Amino acid sequence: MEGKIELHGLSFQPGEAVEKPKGRASKAGLPPGTPVYIGQPKVEQLRCRAYLYNQTTFEERTPCPDECANLRQEGITLWLDVVGLHDVDAIHTVAEAFQLHPLTLEDILNTHQRPKAEEYEGYLYLVMRMLTFDPGSQRIESEQVSLIIGADFVLSFQEREGDVFEPVRDRLRAPQSRLRARSADFLAYSLIDAIVDHYFVVLEHVGDQIEKLEAQLMTQTDGALLQAIQSWRHALLEFSHAAWPLREAIGWLARDETPYIQEATRLYLRDVYDHLMYVIENLTTYREMLSNLVELYLSATSNRLNEVMKMLTIIATVFMPLSFIAGIYGMNFEYMPELGWRWGYPAVLVLMLIVAVGLLYYFRRRGWL
Amino acid sequence: MEGKIELHGLSFQPGEAVEKPKGRASKAGLPPGTPVYIGQPKVEQLRCRAYLYNQTTFEERTPCPDECANLRQEGITLWLDVVGLHDVDAIHTVAEAFQLHPLTLEDILNTHQRPKAEEYEGYLYLVMRMLTFDPGSQRIESEQVSLIIGADFVLSFQEREGDVFEPVRDRLRAPQSRLRARSADFLAYSLIDAIVDHYFVVLEHVGDQIEKLEAQLMTQTDGALLQAIQSWRHALLEFSHAAWPLREAIGWLARDETPYIQEATRLYLRDVYDHLMYVIENLTTYREMLSNLVELYLSATSNRLNEVMKMLTIIATVFMPLSFIAGIYGMNFEYMPELGWRWGYPAVLVLMLIVAVGLLYYFRRRGWL
Amino acid sequence: MEGKIELHGLSFQPGEAVEKPKGRASKAGLPPGTPVYIGQPKVEQLRCRAYLYNQTTFEERTPCPDECANLRQEGITLWLDVVGLHDVDAIHTVAEAFQLHPLTLEDILNTHQRPKAEEYEGYLYLVMRMLTFDPGSQRIESEQVSLIIGADFVLSFQEREGDVFEPVRDRLRAPQSRLRARSADFLAYSLIDAIVDHYFVVLEHVGDQIEKLEAQLMTQTDGALLQAIQSWRHALLEFSHAAWPLREAIGWLARDETPYIQEATRLYLRDVYDHLMYVIENLTTYREMLSNLVELYLSATSNRLNEVMKMLTIIATVFMPLSFIAGIYGMNFEYMPELGWRWGYPAVLVLMLIVAVGLLYYFRRRGWL
Amino acid sequence: MEGKIELHGLSFQPGEAVEKPKGRASKAGLPPGTPVYIGQPKVEQLRCRAYLYNQTTFEERTPCPDECANLRQEGITLWLDVVGLHDVDAIHTVAEAFQLHPLTLEDILNTHQRPKAEEYEGYLYLVMRMLTFDPGSQRIESEQVSLIIGADFVLSFQEREGDVFEPVRDRLRAPQSRLRARSADFLAYSLIDAIVDHYFVVLEHVGDQIEKLEAQLMTQTDGALLQAIQSWRHALLEFSHAAWPLREAIGWLARDETPYIQEATRLYLRDVYDHLMYVIENLTTYREMLSNLVELYLSATSNRLNEVMKMLTIIATVFMPLSFIAGIYGMNFEYMPELGWRWGYPAVLVLMLIVAVGLLYYFRRRGWL
Amino acid sequence: MEGKIELHGLSFQPGEAVEKPKGRASKAGLPPGTPVYIGQPKVEQLRCRAYLYNQTTFEERTPCPDECANLRQEGITLWLDVVGLHDVDAIHTVAEAFQLHPLTLEDILNTHQRPKAEEYEGYLYLVMRMLTFDPGSQRIESEQVSLIIGADFVLSFQEREGDVFEPVRDRLRAPQSRLRARSADFLAYSLIDAIVDHYFVVLEHVGDQIEKLEAQLMTQTDGALLQAIQSWRHALLEFSHAAWPLREAIGWLARDETPYIQEATRLYLRDVYDHLMYVIENLTTYREMLSNLVELYLSATSNRLNEVMKMLTIIATVFMPLSFIAGIYGMNFEYMPELGWRWGYPAVLVLMLIVAVGLLYYFRRRGWL
Repeated sequence: MEGKIELHGLSFQPGEAVEKPKGRASKAGLPPGTPVYIGQPKVEQLRCRAYLYNQTTFEERTPCPDECANLRQEGITLWLDVVGLHDVDAIHTVAEAFQLHPLTLEDILNTHQRPKAEEYEGYLYLVMRMLTFDPGSQRIESEQVSLIIGADFVLSFQEREGDVFEPVRDRLRAPQSRLRARSADFLAYSLIDAIVDHYFVVLEHVGDQIEKLEAQLMTQTDGALLQAIQSWRHALLEFSHAAWPLREAIGWLARDETPYIQEATRLYLRDVYDHLMYVIENLTTYREMLSNLVELYLSATSNRLNEVMKMLTIIATVFMPLSFIAGIYGMNFEYMPELGWRWGYPAVLVLMLIVAVGLLYYFRRRGWL
Repeated sequence: MEGKIELHGLSFQPGEAVEKPKGRASKAGLPPGTPVYIGQPKVEQLRCRAYLYNQTTFEERTPCPDECANLRQEGITLWLDVVGLHDVDAIHTVAEAFQLHPLTLEDILNTHQRPKAEEYEGYLYLVMRMLTFDPGSQRIESEQVSLIIGADFVLSFQEREGDVFEPVRDRLRAPQSRLRARSADFLAYSLIDAIVDHYFVVLEHVGDQIEKLEAQLMTQTDGALLQAIQSWRHALLEFSHAAWPLREAIGWLARDETPYIQEATRLYLRDVYDHLMYVIENLTTYREMLSNLVELYLSATSNRLNEVMKMLTIIATVFMPLSFIAGIYGMNFEYMPELGWRWGYPAVLVLMLIVAVGLLYYFRRRGWL
Repeated sequence: MEGKIELHGLSFQPGEAVEKPKGRASKAGLPPGTPVYIGQPKVEQLRCRAYLYNQTTFEERTPCPDECANLRQEGITLWLDVVGLHDVDAIHTVAEAFQLHPLTLEDILNTHQRPKAEEYEGYLYLVMRMLTFDPGSQRIESEQVSLIIGADFVLSFQEREGDVFEPVRDRLRAPQSRLRARSADFLAYSLIDAIVDHYFVVLEHVGDQIEKLEAQLMTQTDGALLQAIQSWRHALLEFSHAAWPLREAIGWLARDETPYIQEATRLYLRDVYDHLMYVIENLTTYREMLSNLVELYLSATSNRLNEVMKMLTIIATVFMPLSFIAGIYGMNFEYMPELGWRWGYPAVLVLMLIVAVGLLYYFRRRGWL
Repeated sequence: MEGKIELHGLSFQPGEAVEKPKGRASKAGLPPGTPVYIGQPKVEQLRCRAYLYNQTTFEERTPCPDECANLRQEGITLWLDVVGLHDVDAIHTVAEAFQLHPLTLEDILNTHQRPKAEEYEGYLYLVMRMLTFDPGSQRIESEQVSLIIGADFVLSFQEREGDVFEPVRDRLRAPQSRLRARSADFLAYSLIDAIVDHYFVVLEHVGDQIEKLEAQLMTQTDGALLQAIQSWRHALLEFSHAAWPLREAIGWLARDETPYIQEATRLYLRDVYDHLMYVIENLTTYREMLSNLVELYLSATSNRLNEVMKMLTIIATVFMPLSFIAGIYGMNFEYMPELGWRWGYPAVLVLMLIVAVGLLYYFRRRGWL
Repeated sequence: MEGKIELHGLSFQPGEAVEKPKGRASKAGLPPGTPVYIGQPKVEQLRCRAYLYNQTTFEERTPCPDECANLRQEGITLWLDVVGLHDVDAIHTVAEAFQLHPLTLEDILNTHQRPKAEEYEGYLYLVMRMLTFDPGSQRIESEQVSLIIGADFVLSFQEREGDVFEPVRDRLRAPQSRLRARSADFLAYSLIDAIVDHYFVVLEHVGDQIEKLEAQLMTQTDGALLQAIQSWRHALLEFSHAAWPLREAIGWLARDETPYIQEATRLYLRDVYDHLMYVIENLTTYREMLSNLVELYLSATSNRLNEVMKMLTIIATVFMPLSFIAGIYGMNFEYMPELGWRWGYPAVLVLMLIVAVGLLYYFRRRGWL
């Protein structure tokens, strides 16, 4: 599980979730609610980006954490995007500015959360996994994203630079966009939708990898191939662990009456819910395809063995009788009349030919050749 | 997964759903609710057909999209059948004429929907998959059909020409038909019923294909056969993905009190629901049959190996002792009295015969011959 | 799937349900509610038998369909047993006499119904499958039975002659029987009970067949055996498809408050429900036994291969060294002192014996012999 | 399935439930509610034992069936323990004395009941299976026990002599026992608890058998071993069929408000429910262990084949080249200079030695030796 | 199952739960509610430790059991930690001091409880399993921990010395800790959280072991490896049996309104619930990884067989024709002109070389070499 498996241009590292417990374990025994960042530091320094907008105005700022408390303004919707979680003090400052509950803070920092949505006093907390496919390493990258949805603000916490939110930012910058005309919950929906839409991109790449594996299966039965299949099975399992609970969480947001999500937005969340259902069904299909590949692989191995054994059997079956005939006339009996015959030698050669041809004909008739 | 698998008159291309994510992915990042057609353009040009009827009158028209807004008349039920989804502007025009919600429009155009039923203001939205079996390519074709069910109109959106609604149209044209006497919801039911009834046709063809596979299994153990079995497993999985959620959706329509479905029609929908249950049970049976075929295939492979090895063993077991005897009398010792015997050679030949017959008898008794 | 599999007195034809879709498909596209008989005509002519009884009187008649409307009398319970469904007009006449809903009529004629119970205005509709084991062909026969349960009448529709209701008829004829003293719902219960009780008979036969298969497995590993196992798996699957939904339907009748089933009868239906649970559990056990048989079969195949390979290895391992020794002394070198020794030949024979015995001893110690 | 499988001190006969349908089938067609005893007569004669007690008094009697009606006394709790069910008339007499419903009587006599609890007028009816492990035959014995729980009496019906209730009887006889101080429902609970506690004893024995099987697997790969594993799988399946529905029934008793179970006793029943959950989890573990044993068995078989084939390959690979060399110098060409060399023969022997040693070294390096 | 399996530094002993029934069985037949300690005595002597604290004071004592009744004081929260369960009398004394129900006492002593939470009069009872990973024996140790949560006290019962509560004790000792400021329910939560946090530690170790197994699989296909895989599967099953029901119990505490858990603490329990969900998902992943390892193992075995057979086939296929040629020229016919040729011998050697090279070339082209 440690290293990557390199295989004919396929490279794969089992999904994050498998290794999560490692970091999590180091926290065992600490007082509950103690905010400790679990995970590798993924950016050098915490970076905040604030987007302040309403239908008429738009402003981008990059405040330092201490300034966050002063960002909120009457009639302006705020999106504060925080990248990098290792600087616990800075995160703490941000959390206090928005009066987040200690448990929320703990959950934001502990990057091994199961996707979920929870209502706290003053805000909704939604944690989910952002999946991207890294074409270089040919593997799925997973990152935890926390959203805090308040009445007039959205906070997003990411582990590292690079996300799938760029199109949302572009739409914020466009003066006419519907996004600007709506309130914070619609922004939150747009962010969720961007993440779920990217699941489709990952799904497509997974599909490509499975096709590649299937094609390779036709030409080789290397043990490494089976290992690659198993690795993708784990990856899909991780993907499911990201998608299934998110579906639940989104379903709850779309259904229940929480003051932070407006009726109109709920309809859009129902749509995201349907997309997740679709993703999950495709994951099921892919997992079934992979387990069918295992069957194909095992059957190919066994067919190859059959082929080898047929070859051996044909060779042995043809040459054993021939060698036996040769052995007979290699005996040193004094009275073997055939040995003295003038045409004895050619006759035996002809006999051997007949035996060989007869056997080969027999094999062909049985369909072995 | 790219090409088709050709196998003794069986040709199969894995169901659509597996490839869906491809198109869907290209939409990632666009503003939610942006109507973009996902999929290949399947007809050259969008084509509308309007059917205006009540118990006494009936009229067929082929309006251009702009005229759609003027089609509705008091006391007349309208069925507007729209074929071809790539012309987004035209679809937009139609959607506006009937005041469809942006999300509905998006769902109509995104042809990778999971079947579902939703109630919007002013209409019910039902999306389902129309399955047909193409006897030429021997594969299941899948197409998304969206129904908009209003108080006095039904809109249907299809991807391409050719559907299973012809019998419904014939009944509309017949002056005495029950269909004409009923309102829009009964027309919607008739369309749903036509699609579900066609599932049975597809089911029958699938059954035929499975029988063919089973028959071939008796005579060959080609790896391509296993591949064909796996392909049909995928196809049945896709079929299930079409039937299961539709069952849910129809169940909801048959049960819940929505103003767009009348009490009397609900009884008929319950019937469609039962048909879908039946389809699903048969799909389960077929999937089990296919996985049994895999077992039969693997067992046939292994039996063939056994047969080959028996052959080898019999040959080796018979000829090794014989060759050994010949080898003994091929030794060049000076003092080998047998070599000088007059009947030594015939005696050895008889000995060999006895050994061979004895061994063959032994094999027969063990049931190997 | 076409023909029967004959195997040592076992003959089996996969259950009906697998082939059902064929008939059903031909109906696709017809107006919903059109009564068309789906299936082979199973009797030459429709035949009705009417049983009119109360505590004091009993009468049997065989009316023609037109007379059915006049059979009902005040204070008399009527059981009308209709056999043969291909004569759609006659069935129609009967249905009208009892004011059946068009959907009920369609369901009666479409013999590919999933068992279910439905309440219509004026009657309960229950459809179920009657299973019998034909000792001649050694297979399970399946037939659809529809019951219409009204306030004072029960209609039963069967596909062909021959049923499991004879004991019920005998009890009706007996003047003292409890059945006569009760109302129509108790008669309906008696008919349901007769069908479910017969499931046990079929279950017992299935158990016998499985025992036979198990016994055969001890002595042969024919591919046909595996095929027979798979066929019974399908048969049990069909059986489950008959029993599972019936359990639901009976559970609903036993639980819900419908005016057509009296409180006292409900208790008896609960008993039938328990019997069905028991049948279903046994079906599960049988299916598990069959899949264990597959494992045993595959293991037997593999053990046989092991045995064959051991035989080959022993033979080869013994004779190869011996032949090699013989080969050495068959060489034609001029200076091979052993060849001139007086006891060379016997010494070599003794050497060979020692080698052979040593190898056999070795094999015995490893447990191969 | 007919006989027992004897295997190295293991003997097993598949659970009862598999054969139950046989007896049950013979009842098909009889009027519902007809009390017929299904099963082998397990005692010569029906025997009743009555225990009459309250906090101060205790009396044991062995009444004949006719006296049962007179056993009940004000202020005295009665436990009537009936053994032997074949004497239908006697059972009938007992049933009438306590006014049991015909369906209850039928269920008591039909010993193929699924465990369940039902409330009738005047009493609760609970049917369950008493499991014991017979150390002689090394198999699980199963027997149906019915409990009738009234306000001041408990009836228990067993199939044969010998039960797990002895400790309960001892406690009844002890003047100070808590059991005497409580009412009938606590006695019923004590009987249920005794049966469920005995499930643990059986579970322990099953565990021992599985350990034995596992140990044998290390040393042999006999087909009989696999068969024994499969037999225990059936036995555990039967065990599950006894425990699962009982859990439901006990859960219902512990939860619902029935007048025959007091609030205080309900707490104890909840405890029995937890024990059953624990039994069921262990059954799951055992079933998984057995299916792992099957995997180990198949893998051992396949390892053995590998070993055999390695042996064959080594022998063949060593001796084939050697024999070939000997064959070359056995050729009769006139001009073969080596044959005339003085050291030709020893040189060839040395060559052979080098070839053999080289090959063996090669095999060792590949890890085959 | 008796001994440990030692394998390349891996040592494993199947989880406790498998052996639990043994102890439990010895209790069968005893009066219900009889407190009997089931299990091995794990400490020499029962030991109590009392922690008395509120926001301002903190005191640690080690009372003997008789003093327990006097520990409770107004305004002081008490944690009484009891280690060692074999001294039933002492436990009884403690139980009486806190008025525990007999069933609670029985459950505390019977160390084979399924994790559960129950509300009794005056306290909540929670039983769970504390898992630790022993690095020496490389196995998971399991111990039952019972918590009694009262209004102002928490009792904890452990089987042996050594637990995961040390960090909780440290926090109690720290004057400023949040724990001191809260009431008993928060202490209980802290203990539960400590146990669940330790599940992550165990999970991490399990992950390491699986990685080790996977690495070994690359280099060996020993049967012991498969056995080790199966052992870990059991261990994970046991782990699941500890985690699944605990999740239910915690979910119930977090959701339901019981007076012993305050609203604020409930939020923290919801967090523990999420952690358990995460543990369970990882267990699922690990179990899937192990069953994939089995597939890899079987495939490796089969690949090895293929390799062996290829080797054999190549050797046989090359040497059989060669030996046959040698055999021909070893025949003793008088008229074999080749034998007299001057270059006959070299020509035959060259022929043999050509045959050998040709065959090897053929094998290379087929990819066998």
